[in-house]
Amino acid sequence: MLEELKQEVYEANMMLPKLGIVTFTWGNVSGLDRDKGLFVIKPSGVEYEKLRPEDMVVVDLDGNVVEGTMNPSSDTQTHRVLYREFSGINAIVHTHSSWAVSFAQAGVEIEAMGTTHADNFYGTIPVTEALTQAEIESAYEENTGQVIVRTFRSRGIDPAAVPAVLVKQHGPFTWGATTKKAVENAKVLDLVAEMNYRTMTLQRGNTRVPQYLLDKHYLRKHGANAYYGQNA
Amino acid sequence: MLEELKQEVYEANMMLPKLGIVTFTWGNVSGLDRDKGLFVIKPSGVEYEKLRPEDMVVVDLDGNVVEGTMNPSSDTQTHRVLYREFSGINAIVHTHSSWAVSFAQAGVEIEAMGTTHADNFYGTIPVTEALTQAEIESAYEENTGQVIVRTFRSRGIDPAAVPAVLVKQHGPFTWGATTKKAVENAKVLDLVAEMNYRTMTLQRGNTRVPQYLLDKHYLRKHGANAYYGQNA
Amino acid sequence: MLEELKQEVYEANMMLPKLGIVTFTWGNVSGLDRDKGLFVIKPSGVEYEKLRPEDMVVVDLDGNVVEGTMNPSSDTQTHRVLYREFSGINAIVHTHSSWAVSFAQAGVEIEAMGTTHADNFYGTIPVTEALTQAEIESAYEENTGQVIVRTFRSRGIDPAAVPAVLVKQHGPFTWGATTKKAVENAKVLDLVAEMNYRTMTLQRGNTRVPQYLLDKHYLRKHGANAYYGQNA
Amino acid sequence: MLEELKQEVYEANMMLPKLGIVTFTWGNVSGLDRDKGLFVIKPSGVEYEKLRPEDMVVVDLDGNVVEGTMNPSSDTQTHRVLYREFSGINAIVHTHSSWAVSFAQAGVEIEAMGTTHADNFYGTIPVTEALTQAEIESAYEENTGQVIVRTFRSRGIDPAAVPAVLVKQHGPFTWGATTKKAVENAKVLDLVAEMNYRTMTLQRGNTRVPQYLLDKHYLRKHGANAYYGQNA
Repeated sequence: MLEELKQEVYEANMMLPKLGIVTFTWGNVSGLDRDKGLFVIKPSGVEYEKLRPEDMVVVDLDGNVVEGTMNPSSDTQTHRVLYREFSGINAIVHTHSSWAVSFAQAGVEIEAMGTTHADNFYGTIPVTEALTQAEIESAYEENTGQVIVRTFRSRGIDPAAVPAVLVKQHGPFTWGATTKKAVENAKVLDLVAEMNYRTMTLQRGNTRVPQYLLDKHYLRKHGANAYYGQNA
Repeated sequence: MLEELKQEVYEANMMLPKLGIVTFTWGNVSGLDRDKGLFVIKPSGVEYEKLRPEDMVVVDLDGNVVEGTMNPSSDTQTHRVLYREFSGINAIVHTHSSWAVSFAQAGVEIEAMGTTHADNFYGTIPVTEALTQAEIESAYEENTGQVIVRTFRSRGIDPAAVPAVLVKQHGPFTWGATTKKAVENAKVLDLVAEMNYRTMTLQRGNTRVPQYLLDKHYLRKHGANAYYGQNA
Repeated sequence: MLEELKQEVYEANMMLPKLGIVTFTWGNVSGLDRDKGLFVIKPSGVEYEKLRPEDMVVVDLDGNVVEGTMNPSSDTQTHRVLYREFSGINAIVHTHSSWAVSFAQAGVEIEAMGTTHADNFYGTIPVTEALTQAEIESAYEENTGQVIVRTFRSRGIDPAAVPAVLVKQHGPFTWGATTKKAVENAKVLDLVAEMNYRTMTLQRGNTRVPQYLLDKHYLRKHGANAYYGQNA
Repeated sequence: MLEELKQEVYEANMMLPKLGIVTFTWGNVSGLDRDKGLFVIKPSGVEYEKLRPEDMVVVDLDGNVVEGTMNPSSDTQTHRVLYREFSGINAIVHTHSSWAVSFAQAGVEIEAMGTTHADNFYGTIPVTEALTQAEIESAYEENTGQVIVRTFRSRGIDPAAVPAVLVKQHGPFTWGATTKKAVENAKVLDLVAEMNYRTMTLQRGNTRVPQYLLDKHYLRKHGANAYYGQNA
């Protein structure tokens, strides 16, 4: 079942240690077959060195395991909520990459301070509100998804244009149209956090770029008039 | 004698350079056979590249070398005290990993600022008092163990729930039920120190997580109701 | 056409990931054959692992593609302007290396604070003005070249002596007489930015070196009286 | 001539990139045969990948090249002065390692803030005065050696107990009884600089360790009563 997607999700998971954004087992990638309403996700707590494509778990959009002998990632319910609520996305990545987590712990947003950001994210990467005690004590992982959705809705942010969030006191989630793109976004998020940290400690004033720079760089890589790369 | 434990302790020692938390010979792992009252520890000052399983030294809980031709780690008496006083632990790790040492030198505790911490440590990782001149000049390594024990007792911290400490002006010790877990704790400690450093320099206000978040994350990975991983 | 230069430019591009100053496809090196008035540049958005010497694109100094089936780097017009305006240079490098970008985002120049800088750059590495909305919305990449040229002309900086610039809110461009030298300058720029960051956060006062130190170190490596290395 | 020492000095030089404390060709190690009054040093500006034992240059203590076809390191005169003035040392290392250079640029000493320092350096690692214009313009490299010697003499520091210095606006020199020890000191210096940077930015107050801690840790590894390692 979904053997091709399992292979793809397996390979995307294996990119995380290769890109230096995961320690031990603390990361997971899932990929969605939107037609079938099923997604494939890494099993919980398995070491990357021992992971095999056939270990991937198939889950439906109600959160039920449909195939697989292992427990799915403990963050499965968060993925499920995001797939249901963000209609354009087919892959999700969660890591504890160190720069992104540092901003999530500090509750500091990742503002666009340069073209590296603008090439990849069309605006500020938001930090969610902290979950309440009630939200944590019951259906915690689902509520993590809900607070992400609420953050984007209440602030009018398009998850296709800003495919990343920092969950307060926790860490980053990123997504994309493909597993490859979602993993790239996880790496870029950590890099722009690193650059912003140094920018902000060098220069305490406003270092946000103007909207027209954001437009130029984002739109030369994305959308109808993109001219970056070979497929533009 | 204890050949299996020697192999295990050897392998755990070799993980330290692989995880990037040791420089030159500055780290040591020991493992305890509590039934026999003996522990196995790395010899003092031997380069990791030259280390062999048969070089491990067997020591009893009075601190006497029972088997082995090499001098045991200079920190052997610290390990001995911790094994005697912390009844639930079977492995100890000491390193000079750079983020943890930086906090130990600054005398700044590692507060729980996010779920990475809460997944692994059930509360603040304390810094000991500095040893007095008398404690340093006589039975120094034993007194290092004693100040750790005193720190946990006086503050009512359970060493099974917070398996890590920073010895002021020195560096980290971690422990666990197994050598593997103790080594993991040494790596996680360094990572949370790194993340806290950046969190604290981004945001000078209070960034400690609430108790209910600590409960949720720690208890979803540890204890009777854990549901993270495959054995939960 | 220009097969030797293509091979050289290919190899110079492959140095960027090896030196740790590029992520994904975010960097490009070009090399100029000044006699023929043609330069060779990396294609846009191609992964380094898949890049081949024959993928390099040949462009003339009016910015027209003369040979090659792929789109040239999106920064081609910036390279073109620099080749036209800076007569002594035969190679250009652009990266998003993290320390240099942090300074470009902060708008903080790289002052000469020590001999590492003085060995390679004969004075302050400037930051350009931010491009205006009009400059960004039309002929953006060409205007990026123009703002670099304007920065050097208006401040009387010799691009042969200071072969590096930070484009505000964007990142570094470096150049040189050879592709090898231009790539080295890209790496050194990132290193001096890293060192300056720490110098400036340790010591907020003036840490710029005097002119005579700059003279000594720069001139012992460059020019008629150089005595560093084997060819001096 | 001195083939064994050439091999040893070659291997010591090759340790610098392996330990991550050198970029490009910016480092050099020399070793002295004190009986013969000759030292062996790396040639100037040769890439580590191309370096061979037979490339090492033999120099006498008046600074004359005695054997070798290549130019010796441009820092040869600095090494010569240190060998003449510091009688107990047989090897010298110079690098531009990034943490040590940052402190040298800032003019901030490396105080002993913990046992990592105390294990290796018996007190503060000093920063020299900046060289004057006259000292830089004539016999610069020799004057670099002289300012190091003056720093140790005027402050009563024993170069055998503190085998490291930061030359202001330049970078570190370390030394030792053997090439291996001098290279180790270069690595430890960079590590303690890194740790001190973070300690100092976490905790602006006094974080220097007391003399009795310095005594304990330094003397358990060095001198007649040392008990660390296998030869103690």
